[in-house]
Amino acid sequence: MKVRRESKRVPGFSAAGVHAGIKASAPDLALIVSDVPASVAAVFTKSTVVGAPVEVSRERVKSGRARGVVVNSGVSNVAMGARGIRDAKQMAKLAAKAVGCEEEEMLVASTGVIGEPLPMNVLKTGIPRVAAALAIDGWNDAAEAIRTTDTHAKVASTKLRLGGKLITLQGIAKGSGMIEPNMATMLSYLATDAKIAPAILRGMLSRVANQTYNCLSIDGEGSTSDTVILFANGAAGGGALHGDDAHKFEVALLAVCEDLVRQLARDGEGATKLLIVEVEGAKNVAEADRAARRIGNSLLVKTAVFGGDPNWGRIMQTIGHGQIAWHPENTRVRVGGVVVFSKGRSAGPAARKRAEKAHEAEEIKIQVDLGLGKHSARLFTCDLTYDYVKINAEYTT
Amino acid sequence: MKVRRESKRVPGFSAAGVHAGIKASAPDLALIVSDVPASVAAVFTKSTVVGAPVEVSRERVKSGRARGVVVNSGVSNVAMGARGIRDAKQMAKLAAKAVGCEEEEMLVASTGVIGEPLPMNVLKTGIPRVAAALAIDGWNDAAEAIRTTDTHAKVASTKLRLGGKLITLQGIAKGSGMIEPNMATMLSYLATDAKIAPAILRGMLSRVANQTYNCLSIDGEGSTSDTVILFANGAAGGGALHGDDAHKFEVALLAVCEDLVRQLARDGEGATKLLIVEVEGAKNVAEADRAARRIGNSLLVKTAVFGGDPNWGRIMQTIGHGQIAWHPENTRVRVGGVVVFSKGRSAGPAARKRAEKAHEAEEIKIQVDLGLGKHSARLFTCDLTYDYVKINAEYTT
Repeated sequence: MKVRRESKRVPGFSAAGVHAGIKASAPDLALIVSDVPASVAAVFTKSTVVGAPVEVSRERVKSGRARGVVVNSGVSNVAMGARGIRDAKQMAKLAAKAVGCEEEEMLVASTGVIGEPLPMNVLKTGIPRVAAALAIDGWNDAAEAIRTTDTHAKVASTKLRLGGKLITLQGIAKGSGMIEPNMATMLSYLATDAKIAPAILRGMLSRVANQTYNCLSIDGEGSTSDTVILFANGAAGGGALHGDDAHKFEVALLAVCEDLVRQLARDGEGATKLLIVEVEGAKNVAEADRAARRIGNSLLVKTAVFGGDPNWGRIMQTIGHGQIAWHPENTRVRVGGVVVFSKGRSAGPAARKRAEKAHEAEEIKIQVDLGLGKHSARLFTCDLTYDYVKINAEYTT
Repeated sequence: MKVRRESKRVPGFSAAGVHAGIKASAPDLALIVSDVPASVAAVFTKSTVVGAPVEVSRERVKSGRARGVVVNSGVSNVAMGARGIRDAKQMAKLAAKAVGCEEEEMLVASTGVIGEPLPMNVLKTGIPRVAAALAIDGWNDAAEAIRTTDTHAKVASTKLRLGGKLITLQGIAKGSGMIEPNMATMLSYLATDAKIAPAILRGMLSRVANQTYNCLSIDGEGSTSDTVILFANGAAGGGALHGDDAHKFEVALLAVCEDLVRQLARDGEGATKLLIVEVEGAKNVAEADRAARRIGNSLLVKTAVFGGDPNWGRIMQTIGHGQIAWHPENTRVRVGGVVVFSKGRSAGPAARKRAEKAHEAEEIKIQVDLGLGKHSARLFTCDLTYDYVKINAEYTT
């Protein structure tokens, strides 16, 4: 199956993005709507404190049904107490009214400055405008409007044939740009015209998110507003997916989400490279995951990748510090596909040269085989550069 | 009690540092020796893989007695298998012979390149030379010889009167400079002429290390060779410390170790500021510690400190992501002594200006009161700067 980084029409869905006036000039308000009530599943930030829109949407997706989502960028509606909840509900109500659905069928998200109230007067005029702009071709506009400091909008789509029907699956995402005063919020919205029961959809998204969005880390931080929502409206016709077809759809969902996550990691703040860390041979999944996260979040490893240095010492030291069972003699480290450490020792200067050369690519893999068991894990991240420091230190409010 | 950043004579101890030839030109071999067998206590790296010298010394300090320690910089003797152990023992044996003590009474440490063998021929000629250089005034030379990329040697000392005797306590340390290909090893050696039983000494060092060395983090990484050793030789005379006197000594030990840790944090790679994170009001110690570590290791917080930005949003978001119980309404955040967030909202632009101004100092505190309980924790760290990226990315082997 081919995943394309371009938007497709998804039958029965429309989308839009406009400049409502929350930001000075960039698009800041997006709307995605299904013509009919769709099955819905979502995953949210695991932070102990969440934004008001997350609280509202988390409650609403429990029904398994929704018509759409309204999203603004510029102000995050985080840490606003009772007023935040009231404003998030009001924002969803305005969108529901504009598209003609029940208030509870509309989900809501916000990303941007924390500790400031949503400009409700701007939304009052903006939401009818974004609703009026809804179009089957509006996905790129929506992807633009949820952006913050991402350097480009992120779209991924695929088509597949299931039970004789041509199914479309499309996703948009925004990543790891910091907004005053700093939420690195990740938002992603997915839509398909396949017919899928809410309980099945929930299981699919949960499994796929664990392999994709939850394996994304720019700087080891998450935000109070991270949200992924998947809508399935059944507009393609036919019965609800099950068995083999459901499995095939999940494979497609994994491919689309992984592509979005690669785009997000590659566009991490100041990044010059997509870094994929793969750990295998771990005693258990928890240790594999911890090792991958330690390597991928290590400042020493990330600066080495920026510097084009296949530094197995830094990789092994950060694993050791992570209280992970391993033995140097059993461990093999590959950087850019080149074995740089195995059987307890360096693979020597020729291997090092080849691994250095591999850093010329835009994407680099660090692969560690701990040689202890059968468990593995992955992390999608990026290098740590001068520009990361610049973006985050020179930012002034 | 006054801690001074200068070396004092410690009765019954001598020290030395010389250029043996492991490094091209800088001092690279240190020796610290007590005239008589001393009580000894030590704490070592918690990494699952440790250097050979750590394995050897960890075994030897179990006796509670030692005469001294020999330390080289330049090569770390890590990941060298059976050869590493043999070389570490040989290095200690050479030092024991040169000073005239039992092999098992000599401890050993190495810091530097990993995956390369110790140059034993260099040590064979170097160790007798460093032993010949032993002097009661040799502490600064020893502090120089254990340095790697620290910008200066670190010494702290104090004197106190216990049971009618004037007691001296002195420590040296090296920090967070990376060595090819990257160990951020922390080494610290402490000596006192007080008389203290090994079991008492062990308890003291363990408690003090938990409040000092274990609360130091430059970049969230530890090394396979981190070592702190405390010798007490009783040269001051009198009975072994107990009760009030032991407590007073422990207070002095805490002060000296904290001073060394402040020096280490301030001299972290590329650092322009010492950053002290204090979390109070946590539900339990584990959460206080996790919150302090999350804040102090957050790239977003560390770059904000570099940028002079009292960014409470970043501080709160990293706490939330750390799965720590807290409520914005109960939480108070101070930066540089200025309340910037309390009762669920920003303290406003005037407070912000004052907190920005506080960044002009070389030392800045971030204090978070979670308002939930009585537990607290601290972390000593530094800001994250262009120079950190430069040092770690442009380093080439």
